[in-house]
Amino acid sequence: MAVQTQGVWARYQPGPVPSADRYLEVRDDTESLAEPLSAEDQTVQTMPDVSPTKWHRAHTTWFWEEFVLGPNQPGFQPFHPEYRYLFNSYYESVGPRHSRPQRGLITRPGIAEIAAYRRRTDDIMCELLSSSRAADVAGIAELGLNHEQQHQELILMDIKHVLWCNPMRLTYRGETDARAGSARAAQWIHHPGGLVDIGHDGAGFAFDNEGPRHRELLQPFLIADRPVLCGEWLEFMMDGGYRRPELWMSDGWATVTQGEWSSPLYWTQGEGDGWSIFTLNGVRAVVPEEPVCHISWYEADAFARWTGARLPLEAEWETVHDTLPPAAQTHALRLHPRSVDGAGGSPGDVWEWTASPYSPYPGFHPAAGAVGEYNGKFMVNQFVLRGGACVTPPGHTRPTYRNFFPPSARWAFSGLRLARDA
Amino acid sequence: MAVQTQGVWARYQPGPVPSADRYLEVRDDTESLAEPLSAEDQTVQTMPDVSPTKWHRAHTTWFWEEFVLGPNQPGFQPFHPEYRYLFNSYYESVGPRHSRPQRGLITRPGIAEIAAYRRRTDDIMCELLSSSRAADVAGIAELGLNHEQQHQELILMDIKHVLWCNPMRLTYRGETDARAGSARAAQWIHHPGGLVDIGHDGAGFAFDNEGPRHRELLQPFLIADRPVLCGEWLEFMMDGGYRRPELWMSDGWATVTQGEWSSPLYWTQGEGDGWSIFTLNGVRAVVPEEPVCHISWYEADAFARWTGARLPLEAEWETVHDTLPPAAQTHALRLHPRSVDGAGGSPGDVWEWTASPYSPYPGFHPAAGAVGEYNGKFMVNQFVLRGGACVTPPGHTRPTYRNFFPPSARWAFSGLRLARDA
Amino acid sequence: MAVQTQGVWARYQPGPVPSADRYLEVRDDTESLAEPLSAEDQTVQTMPDVSPTKWHRAHTTWFWEEFVLGPNQPGFQPFHPEYRYLFNSYYESVGPRHSRPQRGLITRPGIAEIAAYRRRTDDIMCELLSSSRAADVAGIAELGLNHEQQHQELILMDIKHVLWCNPMRLTYRGETDARAGSARAAQWIHHPGGLVDIGHDGAGFAFDNEGPRHRELLQPFLIADRPVLCGEWLEFMMDGGYRRPELWMSDGWATVTQGEWSSPLYWTQGEGDGWSIFTLNGVRAVVPEEPVCHISWYEADAFARWTGARLPLEAEWETVHDTLPPAAQTHALRLHPRSVDGAGGSPGDVWEWTASPYSPYPGFHPAAGAVGEYNGKFMVNQFVLRGGACVTPPGHTRPTYRNFFPPSARWAFSGLRLARDA
Amino acid sequence: MAVQTQGVWARYQPGPVPSADRYLEVRDDTESLAEPLSAEDQTVQTMPDVSPTKWHRAHTTWFWEEFVLGPNQPGFQPFHPEYRYLFNSYYESVGPRHSRPQRGLITRPGIAEIAAYRRRTDDIMCELLSSSRAADVAGIAELGLNHEQQHQELILMDIKHVLWCNPMRLTYRGETDARAGSARAAQWIHHPGGLVDIGHDGAGFAFDNEGPRHRELLQPFLIADRPVLCGEWLEFMMDGGYRRPELWMSDGWATVTQGEWSSPLYWTQGEGDGWSIFTLNGVRAVVPEEPVCHISWYEADAFARWTGARLPLEAEWETVHDTLPPAAQTHALRLHPRSVDGAGGSPGDVWEWTASPYSPYPGFHPAAGAVGEYNGKFMVNQFVLRGGACVTPPGHTRPTYRNFFPPSARWAFSGLRLARDA
Repeated sequence: MAVQTQGVWARYQPGPVPSADRYLEVRDDTESLAEPLSAEDQTVQTMPDVSPTKWHRAHTTWFWEEFVLGPNQPGFQPFHPEYRYLFNSYYESVGPRHSRPQRGLITRPGIAEIAAYRRRTDDIMCELLSSSRAADVAGIAELGLNHEQQHQELILMDIKHVLWCNPMRLTYRGETDARAGSARAAQWIHHPGGLVDIGHDGAGFAFDNEGPRHRELLQPFLIADRPVLCGEWLEFMMDGGYRRPELWMSDGWATVTQGEWSSPLYWTQGEGDGWSIFTLNGVRAVVPEEPVCHISWYEADAFARWTGARLPLEAEWETVHDTLPPAAQTHALRLHPRSVDGAGGSPGDVWEWTASPYSPYPGFHPAAGAVGEYNGKFMVNQFVLRGGACVTPPGHTRPTYRNFFPPSARWAFSGLRLARDA
Repeated sequence: MAVQTQGVWARYQPGPVPSADRYLEVRDDTESLAEPLSAEDQTVQTMPDVSPTKWHRAHTTWFWEEFVLGPNQPGFQPFHPEYRYLFNSYYESVGPRHSRPQRGLITRPGIAEIAAYRRRTDDIMCELLSSSRAADVAGIAELGLNHEQQHQELILMDIKHVLWCNPMRLTYRGETDARAGSARAAQWIHHPGGLVDIGHDGAGFAFDNEGPRHRELLQPFLIADRPVLCGEWLEFMMDGGYRRPELWMSDGWATVTQGEWSSPLYWTQGEGDGWSIFTLNGVRAVVPEEPVCHISWYEADAFARWTGARLPLEAEWETVHDTLPPAAQTHALRLHPRSVDGAGGSPGDVWEWTASPYSPYPGFHPAAGAVGEYNGKFMVNQFVLRGGACVTPPGHTRPTYRNFFPPSARWAFSGLRLARDA
Repeated sequence: MAVQTQGVWARYQPGPVPSADRYLEVRDDTESLAEPLSAEDQTVQTMPDVSPTKWHRAHTTWFWEEFVLGPNQPGFQPFHPEYRYLFNSYYESVGPRHSRPQRGLITRPGIAEIAAYRRRTDDIMCELLSSSRAADVAGIAELGLNHEQQHQELILMDIKHVLWCNPMRLTYRGETDARAGSARAAQWIHHPGGLVDIGHDGAGFAFDNEGPRHRELLQPFLIADRPVLCGEWLEFMMDGGYRRPELWMSDGWATVTQGEWSSPLYWTQGEGDGWSIFTLNGVRAVVPEEPVCHISWYEADAFARWTGARLPLEAEWETVHDTLPPAAQTHALRLHPRSVDGAGGSPGDVWEWTASPYSPYPGFHPAAGAVGEYNGKFMVNQFVLRGGACVTPPGHTRPTYRNFFPPSARWAFSGLRLARDA
Repeated sequence: MAVQTQGVWARYQPGPVPSADRYLEVRDDTESLAEPLSAEDQTVQTMPDVSPTKWHRAHTTWFWEEFVLGPNQPGFQPFHPEYRYLFNSYYESVGPRHSRPQRGLITRPGIAEIAAYRRRTDDIMCELLSSSRAADVAGIAELGLNHEQQHQELILMDIKHVLWCNPMRLTYRGETDARAGSARAAQWIHHPGGLVDIGHDGAGFAFDNEGPRHRELLQPFLIADRPVLCGEWLEFMMDGGYRRPELWMSDGWATVTQGEWSSPLYWTQGEGDGWSIFTLNGVRAVVPEEPVCHISWYEADAFARWTGARLPLEAEWETVHDTLPPAAQTHALRLHPRSVDGAGGSPGDVWEWTASPYSPYPGFHPAAGAVGEYNGKFMVNQFVLRGGACVTPPGHTRPTYRNFFPPSARWAFSGLRLARDA
């Protein structure tokens, strides 16, 4: 999942029809995430990558109208004729749409109208899912639920940036997430390489970009048993990591220089008293034992070079996934309502950048029609991340899931894990 | 008043102390202007020139705190320590401030907190104005009221742009302002020129840039007895006015070309059925008999050249002001709550661009301290407008009032009147 | 004269027909200015305001073709059909033209072809000026000569910027222009104000923007008897002049901040050993007794505010011109081939910014046709400069001459003189 | 080779020491490419990607000074102390350098000084290569020769853009390259997939990015036996290829829209008479039978999708390379002086975009020191091209050579070949 790919497509055999109860559970999760936010909070867009919370709430609803109710519910009338224009994210086949960087200029519909829009859609959806026609929409409904969950993570990513841009450093939820912990040295896990099978095997839901399952040849490699921690990142910083061009890709160095980066996003330096970190729960000191987060691919790559290691390939990561031990620390309280707080563990603390550019698997073909636009058209200028983070819906942390962002992006909950040639 | 000059300074002898009743009347006018707007409407900034409604409501309140209560109310504590940073508009002497183009990124304080901020300030201000210390603040309080009224006009200018940027073409207030009317031919009023006295004579409130009163020498001239009408502007458009570089200043032609301008702001062309105009009361057909509005100085200048005339100097305008007859049509319902609807008249329908760059009058010196920053530091790259519009607070249409905007600005309610050499 | 106004128009009675000898003298001056420059030097454009030397040489030649030979020489064929497109500066009436910021992308014609272009045009022009038809072109030929002289100054302004942009800090001509000198305190000259006559009286050549001569009313004022010197400017710098927003116009402060200005253009600071200045003759130490040069209007205005004075109005400057004494120091060797080196004197050392926005005089009307585009269409967003500099052709330093540039420009040889209310 | 990678590194066993004769042959080739160009032609930079010809001539000379003579010639003094700053392309380890987009602002040294710089360096290099110390520099000298040859291709790519930007549509060399030809239908070559060995085997010179040789697993695939031709591209255009978003990557569609692309670079459409193409030999009609050239990766990818095929992986391309038949047509005269004109053949007509992002091969490690910056730091945001073009030095068309450019670049001589899953 990435900023442009909140839509996706299940390419494999559809599972059972989602029940109305399950539908409402997912829909209510979205609303519970927006609940702490005022009308003003939900309206603003602080950079082109960010979408307003109320836009997410409306766009996910539009998805049900456009792809499920419109084609399947006889006599269905959209809630409002203009919403198709306002809340289409990027589906060129569906027609013209509102410009992405201007989502934050839209004051109406407000949050009350969007709540009504959601309720009305939910009523009709529940009716459909409880009817004899439910089987016809099993596949697309499953997709709609997964799509909505992707936007739940985006809501948290995006609102974090919105709150950060206020000089008053606002808080999403009040409780602190600081916790004690002890760092342990990372261990290298060895893998002998050879032919491995990669990609989703078709059991249960997956997005189209997770397949087809296919065979790849790996060289022998080592991979760390935990992500890189903040304490290690501080060493990198103190060793001049952000000031030494020889550690960086050429494009990365240009990005660092132009953005005047000297730390991960959301870090600030006080006067003499070390580094602080802005979280959705407030500002607190950086904890050396927690995984570093909110770094770009450029930073991850430079850090790896500084250590003499490299980032893992996504196939390496997927291959060893089942043998990776849980981590001792988590970056933050589990923020997604379905997360199991405190479980900790690795992967799952932070999304982990890989060395793999985001490309189609051999034999990949997008679905026909508008849903085919979901993943394929973003397979350029991005890198794959694996794992999941404290804001990720639980089911989305499966080993084959391919998240992706441009190498300069760092508002996702992104960290890294080291690897090296054996 | 212009976008950068919501602060000003009365240079002449202070009048009587404003009463608490008068204070509340002005303050309530601001609130009544915001009343039709949702929290979302009040939060958004659609271009750097525009400020959010809730920012205007907070900034005008900050003005009372910073310039009246802070220096004059013993033991006064500001409502919130961060507001000084957030709601300072441009007073460098007061300290650092929030970047103007980022006013629309601020979600909190929300409108409820700002309403509380206003009420608390009003309580203390009324206490002060009813006390024996009231005389000490007579001058600065009068300034504060005029300052707040300037922002009332800005609220309407700015929200018009916000509503326009929504593809649903929102309405500020529902009633239509279309009205019948008959155009009469403009008549030339002759003035013999000679020595005239220009500027405010010191009776009643005026901003510092309206003085000192001084003598100027005018050449004989003619000036039209009404502003240019939409019907005349349509002729200009049909004659290729926006496509003929010989009619334009060089900078103006670059602006037209880059902005792809082919009509005034807020005009749209339907399919075959003529031009429509977006107003605060909705979209309706252009009425040929109403004064043209929302044009830049570049457009006003080009139109005048097309007719063989020119724009009047501000001294010419001021000299003949008392002899100008009322106009037959108004552009819009009077939108300011203190306006007398339907009065019509000229000047007062639209602000009128003059040929005068905005420069200091002979002998002008800004006041000392932060209030001295109000007008003087904007006396470059702008042109003077005279008159007033349907959104202007009534007292601000006095003959000596100098409004000003850059030559490319057109979100103000700006039109033009023709003049020529005699 | 300014960057956009290399074309102009004589509005008054034409004088005698320029002789072929005088024509060749002016044309040869242009060539002698280009002579120290290589083909590479003459090709480059270092910012949009700058034009390549070879473009100036070709454009001035195109002017003769377009406005003199084409209309007056029977059977005349242009040298090359594409040159009309390439070397038209800004005359919209003449047809489409090459984009100004792309003048530096044109490698051909090269300097050899342009030299041939000039020679061929000179041959035909001399034939025409020696013929019986010469009287028909007296006015436009006089204009052509003055136009070409304006470009001679531009060649020097522009090549100075080109040479400066090379990190090797190139030299236009080798000799040093450092000279000893003693500063004397500036004296205030008093003028009682009253009605004065301003503008060219029609005797001899003048550009259209110098007229009509007309009457203005002045207030009593004082004006300094010499320009501001570098030593005074250093005091301004040491007093934090470039770091104190209260001294600056709002737009000026934005310009200083964005451009990171901390001194005039072409000044550099060595390690511990004071300020150096880059001149066309090389780099040398700043001489405190020479007039400050290469400052913008914003800087001139801020300096005047810092001293408690102001800039003079252009009418004030013109009125006292004849009583201004010669200065003790000059900024540089006289660089124009017709300059009298070492004459010194004030005005004439540097162009002097005035407080007057560049506007038309009362009764000004541009000429008909393409030549009417020369001055009028630039009368916005600029300020008037008076005087002349070491690079100015001698005849162009007349008291009524109105030079003009935008307030942020500083690659002209621009300084300032102080004035104040009496 | 790509715009950022004119430096490279031979990682394998050095071959024999290059003789002085071979050295001079390569150096003279560079000079012969510059020979048709005037001083003005060699000075200009028309976009940031382009470097001036004289910069290429100087930079390749600096390479010999910096990496061969400086470390190996006792007592060596550089030709000029500033050249190290001016002519370093991107080697951060070597020190600060002149900003790339400002290479076109440097007028001096001119072409005469650069010719002297080259001759002096050649003299010392020939002395070194003929001496007993020659063996010490065998590896770096071989690299220097290959580096210089890469710049020979860049000289032709870059000057084509320079000449194109002149509205007079200049010609590099006069002869026409139009030729008759007959198109044959493309045939699919089948490959069964399986384990293949990829990368340079270490015999002869190769750049570091061509290794290490390693094993990869391929799926069965089909690949076309010739590149896509202009006639096929015209069909794509006529079928709305540049106007149908569903054919494009999301970033590609944004590029097409913003750049208003409707054809390959250097194509222009006359009035009613079809498409013309600008070549280094002049403008002529598009020949349907020649390979399409000057397209971006985005265009290649969209075209492949339009046909239902895809781009080949670079490993697929390399695997079948030896079985690809020669093509019937070539795009242009062979322009590199060592090219065999008219040979035709495939690959070699155009560089062919692949589906492979430019990433390091397994086990890749850059060399230590400045030469290690050559290839590794560009392995992001680029795609690999294989083959070679009419401007490519003959030895650089080897099957393992990895050229690379960003997906939006199209000033290289880039075309495409189709592939599909078997």
